[in-house]
Amino acid sequence: MYQEKLKILKELKHEVDLILLMNPTNIYYVTGFMSEPHERFYCLLIDVENNETTLFLPSLDEQAANGLAQVDKLVAVADGEDGFAKLTSYVNKDAKLAIEKDFVTVSDYEQLLQVFEYKTFENTTPFIEKVRLKKSTDEVAKTKRAIAITEEALAKTLPQIEVGMTELAVKALLEYELKRLGAEQIAFDTTVLAGENSALPHGVSSHKQIEQGEFLLFDFGVYVDQYCSDITRTFIVGQSTEEQKLIYQTVKQANEAAIATVQLCAPLKQVDLAAREVIEQAGYGEYFTHRVGHGMGLDVHEAPSLHHENEAEISSGLLFTIEPGIYLPKIGGVRIEDDVYVCDDGSVDVLTSYTKDLISI
Amino acid sequence: MYQEKLKILKELKHEVDLILLMNPTNIYYVTGFMSEPHERFYCLLIDVENNETTLFLPSLDEQAANGLAQVDKLVAVADGEDGFAKLTSYVNKDAKLAIEKDFVTVSDYEQLLQVFEYKTFENTTPFIEKVRLKKSTDEVAKTKRAIAITEEALAKTLPQIEVGMTELAVKALLEYELKRLGAEQIAFDTTVLAGENSALPHGVSSHKQIEQGEFLLFDFGVYVDQYCSDITRTFIVGQSTEEQKLIYQTVKQANEAAIATVQLCAPLKQVDLAAREVIEQAGYGEYFTHRVGHGMGLDVHEAPSLHHENEAEISSGLLFTIEPGIYLPKIGGVRIEDDVYVCDDGSVDVLTSYTKDLISI
Repeated sequence: MYQEKLKILKELKHEVDLILLMNPTNIYYVTGFMSEPHERFYCLLIDVENNETTLFLPSLDEQAANGLAQVDKLVAVADGEDGFAKLTSYVNKDAKLAIEKDFVTVSDYEQLLQVFEYKTFENTTPFIEKVRLKKSTDEVAKTKRAIAITEEALAKTLPQIEVGMTELAVKALLEYELKRLGAEQIAFDTTVLAGENSALPHGVSSHKQIEQGEFLLFDFGVYVDQYCSDITRTFIVGQSTEEQKLIYQTVKQANEAAIATVQLCAPLKQVDLAAREVIEQAGYGEYFTHRVGHGMGLDVHEAPSLHHENEAEISSGLLFTIEPGIYLPKIGGVRIEDDVYVCDDGSVDVLTSYTKDLISI
Repeated sequence: MYQEKLKILKELKHEVDLILLMNPTNIYYVTGFMSEPHERFYCLLIDVENNETTLFLPSLDEQAANGLAQVDKLVAVADGEDGFAKLTSYVNKDAKLAIEKDFVTVSDYEQLLQVFEYKTFENTTPFIEKVRLKKSTDEVAKTKRAIAITEEALAKTLPQIEVGMTELAVKALLEYELKRLGAEQIAFDTTVLAGENSALPHGVSSHKQIEQGEFLLFDFGVYVDQYCSDITRTFIVGQSTEEQKLIYQTVKQANEAAIATVQLCAPLKQVDLAAREVIEQAGYGEYFTHRVGHGMGLDVHEAPSLHHENEAEISSGLLFTIEPGIYLPKIGGVRIEDDVYVCDDGSVDVLTSYTKDLISI
């Protein structure tokens, strides 16, 4: 599996001699070994010509990596030892190098400029992103496990919610259920927003108490085996007004219209535009203030971006969110987010299955 | 308060015309406004000569920043708009620039090289780190609130632990209590390790069940008002052996010896060496495999580093951890971590107060 990824990467990127990965997530993708080195030296050196991989890692991690990291060579770097100096003895100084320019810091870049004579480095970030675009069935299986935990935790949390509880208290409950069900990590800051707070697309849970008649929005996910889930559902506390029902049904229709438009070779922008059209038709166009979705996998946000100008074509193996929303200042917001996978035969697998009907809690 | 920080920063850094901050934590430190812009353009431009600050931020955040961010000017950058192009119209192209080289990516750096004619940028990271070293009483008050929640949650969790529970289940319980008590964020991956897992200084909580006679190690912290806590305590499940008692008492003595050595103008390495000496004397020297501590504040790990070669002097305002440990492979590990503040008068305030006696649970 890892050899396969390396092969694709090298096919995309034949103009360099060496690829140096420093992003732990990308290193995991290529080697199957995940580590968080903090400030310690950590990189995967891919010798394109000789098809050889060398993982430089903190001594601390050597035992854990042994046998697990699918690489040809492990090189331990002790605390206090200069990793860049060590790297020097493993490379040709005149090699053409590619690095992750969207990840590597200027400080590390300046160190690399000392190591290599050929100073014009290529950017491997877009290449890695391209390889990571196509998810295998194995990757999707992990995503499904993450989603299953996410949805089950939501189902367990809802009956415990009472008027007067704070957003933060509900968040604590929800995350407790997520972890009890086997989540290894919370994927991103769990969002529980009530009432007018739900109108903030990037709102943060607060001590605000939940009141009757408010929207209650959940946007959350977990990691299982390095792969994440990301789901949003919005509920009504008690009775909904006619306007709330209209907003909710509009968002639901937008979500469904967007999903219906996913098909091989269609431009990605079509998904965004389909949702946007439904919302505009209903007169809420100005209140749908973000793109309709984003790729997901090892990262919660990765390629592709589902915005209204993305002309790239939908291809098999894509895994992304579809999450239209309407946010009315001072009144409240609704967002409904599903995770969608494009299968090899072009069929669309909606991985999230939690009901999208308007539920009163 | 923010003007004061700017003043110190500029005093340290008079050789440049402009300082450009892109690290959200540093921007918060200088402006009082925290945002997580993800891939969006976000930076604080400090005009050193004219004593003027301009915050470039996503349109999305403009409302939240208005009135809260202590800056002279806000410049909103719309989604899809080129932030670097916008920056160009606010700067002199021939200005001498400082950037956070330990944070800024190569991609952003290459964009900045397009904006500025004078291509040799200075690194402001060490300067900002130096300003952040000295914590105010206000910052320490926030740290104390984070620690209070941390210790109270531990006290609430212990009675709920039973033999047979998994590390992950205990972690879920503990984090639930933390959030119920008002933690705004978990500061870092909460570590609950039992038995031989506790011998892994960077171990990750797993489905391992807790058994009689094992060490149970907690290393965790939370954020309150942007400031973190970081504490480690180790317990024994049921009865301890003589060897376990000896290891525990050795670590406790090492912790206390290290704390006792903290005084103004002493070299930081002295704190590490004091703990190390106790552990070496007891014959466990090779099993204390990391530095004794690290600075903390807005980040869980920040300056200073308390390692055995750090000659820098202890000064008032420093806030750091003291966390010696002994890790015996296959048997288990003990670590005891306190958070320590050096007051203006040179006295040492141990902010953590949870008992360090060996407790059987």
